[in-house]
Amino acid sequence: MGTVLKDVQPIGGDAPVEIRFEGARFTAISGEGISPHPGDDLIDGGGKLVAPGFINAHTHLAMVLFRGLADDVPLRVWLEEHVWPIEAKLRPEDVYWCTLLALAEGIRGGTIGFADMYFHTDEVGRAVEESGARGLLSYGIIAPEMDEKGRSEIEAASRSIGRWSGVADGRIRAAISPHTIYTCGEDVWRAAIETAEELGVPIHTHVAETRHEVVEWLEKTGEGTVPYLERIGALSVPMLAAHCVHVDGTDIGILANHGVTVAHCPKSNAKLGSGIAPVNAMRDAGIPVAIGTDGAASNNRLDMVEEMRTAWMVQRALYEEPMKPSAADAFDMAARAARPIFGLEPEGLVEGGSADLILIDREPLHVSPRHDPLATLAFASDALDVTDVLVDGRWLMRSGELRTIDAERVRFEVEGLRRRYNN
Amino acid sequence: MGTVLKDVQPIGGDAPVEIRFEGARFTAISGEGISPHPGDDLIDGGGKLVAPGFINAHTHLAMVLFRGLADDVPLRVWLEEHVWPIEAKLRPEDVYWCTLLALAEGIRGGTIGFADMYFHTDEVGRAVEESGARGLLSYGIIAPEMDEKGRSEIEAASRSIGRWSGVADGRIRAAISPHTIYTCGEDVWRAAIETAEELGVPIHTHVAETRHEVVEWLEKTGEGTVPYLERIGALSVPMLAAHCVHVDGTDIGILANHGVTVAHCPKSNAKLGSGIAPVNAMRDAGIPVAIGTDGAASNNRLDMVEEMRTAWMVQRALYEEPMKPSAADAFDMAARAARPIFGLEPEGLVEGGSADLILIDREPLHVSPRHDPLATLAFASDALDVTDVLVDGRWLMRSGELRTIDAERVRFEVEGLRRRYNN
Repeated sequence: MGTVLKDVQPIGGDAPVEIRFEGARFTAISGEGISPHPGDDLIDGGGKLVAPGFINAHTHLAMVLFRGLADDVPLRVWLEEHVWPIEAKLRPEDVYWCTLLALAEGIRGGTIGFADMYFHTDEVGRAVEESGARGLLSYGIIAPEMDEKGRSEIEAASRSIGRWSGVADGRIRAAISPHTIYTCGEDVWRAAIETAEELGVPIHTHVAETRHEVVEWLEKTGEGTVPYLERIGALSVPMLAAHCVHVDGTDIGILANHGVTVAHCPKSNAKLGSGIAPVNAMRDAGIPVAIGTDGAASNNRLDMVEEMRTAWMVQRALYEEPMKPSAADAFDMAARAARPIFGLEPEGLVEGGSADLILIDREPLHVSPRHDPLATLAFASDALDVTDVLVDGRWLMRSGELRTIDAERVRFEVEGLRRRYNN
Repeated sequence: MGTVLKDVQPIGGDAPVEIRFEGARFTAISGEGISPHPGDDLIDGGGKLVAPGFINAHTHLAMVLFRGLADDVPLRVWLEEHVWPIEAKLRPEDVYWCTLLALAEGIRGGTIGFADMYFHTDEVGRAVEESGARGLLSYGIIAPEMDEKGRSEIEAASRSIGRWSGVADGRIRAAISPHTIYTCGEDVWRAAIETAEELGVPIHTHVAETRHEVVEWLEKTGEGTVPYLERIGALSVPMLAAHCVHVDGTDIGILANHGVTVAHCPKSNAKLGSGIAPVNAMRDAGIPVAIGTDGAASNNRLDMVEEMRTAWMVQRALYEEPMKPSAADAFDMAARAARPIFGLEPEGLVEGGSADLILIDREPLHVSPRHDPLATLAFASDALDVTDVLVDGRWLMRSGELRTIDAERVRFEVEGLRRRYNN
């Protein structure tokens, strides 16, 4: 038995459609009406917008615990005096609850998939599995050299990949995450690259986030960040490269040649004063640019609608170009560019494709009067206008109510952790 | 009889307070508890955040009719082929309904005052008066010279000031609005300045919005935009100058010397590709920088929470400076900088001051765990988290329900207008 969703308005189209799914697949999508099969559920979409869900292409979910912790202090003070001392004390189950809170917020706002990098990844995986969302999970490796610590970090990462890759019918995937070029030595990088090749997983890392790190690397080694990554072979495996704020034309050419997917994090880059990534130039070069929120601590939301809006705003402002990215470009970045890394067909919402979608209310004041669906979503909608989230044929939210996460319980648990650690 | 609001958390403070108001004034604000007077209403604030409401320092409310109309076309095409042909046909009552819709959206998101510039200003005034919000209203003058058209424009503006200045116990104020230096000739400007002096109202205008207009003016006249405004005497009366995107150090010095208030519109400037205003430099020079949404058509929201967030984000990204503007700076811009122009005491939420406040929910997932009130509002809150809006001692919204505007009726009317004009 399946489900037929009636009267929903695709964001790319002019007229409402009906959508049928059964199990984890869409079986029919049509503007002409669909004959339900016997026993099908019928749901009236009430003219709501329907779209493929958002993919948060770079985040550290559990860092939601640090949301609002010492916001306006210098980065180094924030890390050294606030975040790291707490992270050192976090218990595995703390990471579970914090990850669940972050997932709840993300799903509430229409996010169906999360590329997460953190530690205690078994707890991250447990939370993602229970939530019903898609995950690309990785353990963040930090090791200056391939000594005992380096070997144990690579081992932790490999173990996490073995545990989570392909879990829940492929809803959960794994990556390997040497943290950055300056927190992992070349030997550690080479071991990570080898592991990625052996286990068939992508590398998910941070690239050229701040001007300081790029300049310092160049001064110290005489080599650019991206050329270095190319030389050591890191770009020969599929890569999800977060940030890429301080990349030049040469770097962009290299990233494009190697088919790197960039995870653009405009709000985190703004909040931390990192700058504005040259997204228009990267997209012009053919680089798939996806969008991520980064951790809640440097955002402070996990809101892909606002992140999508920030992405087109800062590019238009930076380049003083009014129509680039367009609404369609912005949506492609927020919902489509990272789909291949999650093993999803590129477009979304296609017959035979994975039964993932979100519904968005068109009634609120801030989207009135009714207008072009894509412009509505990209320019005017609020994350809180998302009412329904379907992943792999399962409702994670219906009519604004989360179905897989007990939000009250999770808020209570994380509030207790805040009192335990943040005071 | 008054009202005592218990257990609300000021955004600048550490502990909850109680607030009493009677008529249009706060009579007591205290962390020690307030003894209610006989007959006072008691309201449990439930630990919500309390703040002075936002002031939208530059907008064209009725343009909400054009939200989503031909979004991704060049500015000239948008104006000449879409907006102007419809504006030429708008009936006065159309402006009334559209203004009400915009006010409803703004109040819903915690905005207590609106600096509006449009035409059919009697209908704008009627809507603002009914809504209970504060308004700084003006008729947008467009006239190349002081001919019959020029005189009739100045007359329309003067009439509007006479009709609306000081209405509703001063809740509504008026300004005079020569539209720009390139749509109004020098004689028209001089007549407007004279009128401003005579009637004791500020000038509300657009200044240096696009690079093109600034360069073209300089090439044509040999004089900069801001020096020109100074020379003709436009800065000798109080001025609210929208945009100021393309101002240099000299301009900033002149604006600061004359006490001009700038209405920064970061989202509109981004959407239209106008650029990023040097807000940090202007604030460093002592210029009061307020925030406005501009019209909904170039935003596409009338959401001062998102506008505040965009303001600090684009400055930090532009200057690559992580803590400037701070959360406090951002809130000052969004809620305080324009208060003097509305005749309000600068701080807000003070004993003896005007009884205007908003309450903001601290329970949503996206502001969990609970943290610093100011950081919560500036970095994480959603406009839809605002639950209550009080202006001049009157509730315009209680528990998310608008009290002065029939939102369903207004949406219905504007939807009808969209079908009439936008198709």
